[in-house]
Amino acid sequence: MAQRRTGTASLLKLLGQWHQDLPRTPVYRQLADGLRLLILDGRLPLESRLPGERELASALGLSRTTVATALAQLRDEGYLLSRHGSGSIAVLPEGTGPVSALPGFTPVLDLSTAALSAGPEIHRAYTHALMALPEHLNSTGYDQHGLPELREVIARRYVERGLPTSAEQIMVVNGAVSGFGLILRLLTGPGDRVVIDHPTYPMALAAIKGASCRPVAVSLPETGWDTDGLSATIAQTSPRLAYLLPDFHNPTGRCMDARTRATVAEIAARTHTAIVVDETMVDLWFDAPAPAPLAAYDRADKIITLGSAGKSFWGGLRLGWIRASSRTIASLIQVRGAMDLGTPVLEQLAAISLFKEADTFLPERRAILRQRRDACGEAIKELFPDWRITQAEGGLSWWVELPKPLASAFAAGAEAIGIRIGAGPRFGTEGSFERYLRLPFSLESTAMRSALERLQPLWQHLAQTGNVSVRGGAVV
Amino acid sequence: MAQRRTGTASLLKLLGQWHQDLPRTPVYRQLADGLRLLILDGRLPLESRLPGERELASALGLSRTTVATALAQLRDEGYLLSRHGSGSIAVLPEGTGPVSALPGFTPVLDLSTAALSAGPEIHRAYTHALMALPEHLNSTGYDQHGLPELREVIARRYVERGLPTSAEQIMVVNGAVSGFGLILRLLTGPGDRVVIDHPTYPMALAAIKGASCRPVAVSLPETGWDTDGLSATIAQTSPRLAYLLPDFHNPTGRCMDARTRATVAEIAARTHTAIVVDETMVDLWFDAPAPAPLAAYDRADKIITLGSAGKSFWGGLRLGWIRASSRTIASLIQVRGAMDLGTPVLEQLAAISLFKEADTFLPERRAILRQRRDACGEAIKELFPDWRITQAEGGLSWWVELPKPLASAFAAGAEAIGIRIGAGPRFGTEGSFERYLRLPFSLESTAMRSALERLQPLWQHLAQTGNVSVRGGAVV
Repeated sequence: MAQRRTGTASLLKLLGQWHQDLPRTPVYRQLADGLRLLILDGRLPLESRLPGERELASALGLSRTTVATALAQLRDEGYLLSRHGSGSIAVLPEGTGPVSALPGFTPVLDLSTAALSAGPEIHRAYTHALMALPEHLNSTGYDQHGLPELREVIARRYVERGLPTSAEQIMVVNGAVSGFGLILRLLTGPGDRVVIDHPTYPMALAAIKGASCRPVAVSLPETGWDTDGLSATIAQTSPRLAYLLPDFHNPTGRCMDARTRATVAEIAARTHTAIVVDETMVDLWFDAPAPAPLAAYDRADKIITLGSAGKSFWGGLRLGWIRASSRTIASLIQVRGAMDLGTPVLEQLAAISLFKEADTFLPERRAILRQRRDACGEAIKELFPDWRITQAEGGLSWWVELPKPLASAFAAGAEAIGIRIGAGPRFGTEGSFERYLRLPFSLESTAMRSALERLQPLWQHLAQTGNVSVRGGAVV
Repeated sequence: MAQRRTGTASLLKLLGQWHQDLPRTPVYRQLADGLRLLILDGRLPLESRLPGERELASALGLSRTTVATALAQLRDEGYLLSRHGSGSIAVLPEGTGPVSALPGFTPVLDLSTAALSAGPEIHRAYTHALMALPEHLNSTGYDQHGLPELREVIARRYVERGLPTSAEQIMVVNGAVSGFGLILRLLTGPGDRVVIDHPTYPMALAAIKGASCRPVAVSLPETGWDTDGLSATIAQTSPRLAYLLPDFHNPTGRCMDARTRATVAEIAARTHTAIVVDETMVDLWFDAPAPAPLAAYDRADKIITLGSAGKSFWGGLRLGWIRASSRTIASLIQVRGAMDLGTPVLEQLAAISLFKEADTFLPERRAILRQRRDACGEAIKELFPDWRITQAEGGLSWWVELPKPLASAFAAGAEAIGIRIGAGPRFGTEGSFERYLRLPFSLESTAMRSALERLQPLWQHLAQTGNVSVRGGAVV
């Protein structure tokens, strides 16, 4: 197949701080580690062609032998394919899915995904759904808008949160990521700019790049949001839209306060910029629920809200929704056929049932998560005293600050002992956040502690000596 | 929100033969009808800005008053929004989803979708799925590859059709359209060319354009496929991939013979061009099953096959799959996160059950369709003696050839009496196929005949007098 090409400048930006002063880890190995992580994370487009050895060596300021050795190692491991005259193609080793392991270390413990398993309400909901199914079987089943009853219950939840909403303003989609893809399809074209929080949710970043748009980062300050920065960035770059995660932010777990929401809505109105608000985590609060939805401050029909059943209910129930003006919803429905032909009827029926009992099971889900968050926080403080964590107000993960920019090296070592973790650069553009990790606290506390205990010697070796050799699943 | 712009040249191409010699239909009405259909079909991007009145009038060779009157009518109907200084924006009237009607004529009878309702096997399958669900609830439920057991049964069906396939070569997706979007995301970038049959499946065309790629049409001859044309087009345009519908072609219902399959596979290998084969209709044959899959002739790992449960089982079960080399599958899984986070677990469990009993209920489904095809064909011959139809070998619809290029005018009139039909131009690029309609025969025969009887006077008036005035749901 014809190949796309990743340019040298792009590759350098993606690699970021790949090279550390680690005397016992050869430079070629560090380069190979950096490239492998880019491929595993999906940040380096698969099936794309890398720059040639000579070009790469010159751009990286390395000898051609060093680059050739690194590429040879990746070829041996199955991450690169060589084609006569066409250089190296980024691929995954045969049989490597995103949650499988390097050869010999299955199954991987996947700490790169933050989500809970299902509660008893899920089976109950599908049972109700099956009882309601027969009246829908006498149709073709294609449903691009969503069942009216489901749109009603979703609208009602917005009303309860202080945001008047009708069923016409709701569209049911196959999850928040899928909904965001649809919004990008409607409102953007190749080369358009999309403003993001920085760090942000990796799949949103992937969706923006996948739509051939350019993410424009507004850095999050120590706490809260930088609305001056948002306003200035919008003024300078004229983005098509901005994507924000106010309730709760992924990966930092922070919550946007009411005053900031009002300011963001005012910026959207003043600059005529659409803002996509992803509320996937909104039900997962610990101390207090989030303020009224950002869209409640919208006076100019600029805010499009994304919701998801994946975290509140279960990830195996693939359903999300979009809230916008009924005109925007009608336009989204019209473009949807180019992406998918609707949301499964049974999933929708199950979601109706879950929304109806949400207020009985969500408190319990929050209590479980709060306990896991606290236990995981204690374990981090005990096992990794040099890591810095800030209390998450909601969501499913810690955003860990490391004392040194070693996130990619650590993630590469963790991968080799069968644990996949989200290195900071997955959450940013151009290789930033090398001093950060996202650690989910959604895993049951004992399992999480055991994973952290396995990671501890790896971190110690890495931080002290730069040696991250792993053999037979153990750090040596 | 910032607006994209549809250029004058693009709009003219989309409009195609909008202007007929219809003495009793004013030109402004014909122009409004043409534009409305483009908006309703999704061929004119929603939220995009139209050229200005003056520019449009000059390009169309019309007076500015005529253009202004047409645009004013569309504005009154809710299909255009005017913004001070920024011209007209294409929108849908509030509350207009793709299957709702013009105000006052609900519900629309939707003959633009070709699909069957569910058989009793669907409820049975979900019941089995619910029994199998508990063992999956102790996971996060996110599944980008597909349940191993489902991939096994899908692989087995390919083996039975003469194509050796392992479960690693299968990936479960949210329908064939969604799978095609994923393939486009992996293999193409903006501006790349994608070769298509012409006519072709409108959603595939929408997916190609939505990925900012350029469709390059290879016209279908009277029968079969034009492999010389395919070969020459690939040589001349160096496309990223080609999208073909050999079993069975949508909208024509034809089936590619074994020799042509071998030739197409040889062209793919020789030109190093990936070919996406959409087999959505493969189970819906009438006289004989399709030959071995096109991929069975593949000697160069160039053929990617798409399958779907939407037509064989039920459209409300949103599930499809991709068959490719395990390396390509691994790459597709990696890019998937930018588009959706997986296929619902319960849908997958239901699909396992359906595949296991497919050979018992599919013959009955085919028998129902064969009977409906024949009844619908008889009704067409009787009520529309000047239409030409060619026997469909499989699939769900007739590709009707009209004696005059009146498809868009006819579809506009049908819309006004509450019947949505797929005018030929939906199935092609740049306004072609004005002499064609796609009529599904999936509707129950009595209902279909009654729809055709309602359409008959409309056609007669249109063909004879050019008068398609509709008042109160009746042709006047």
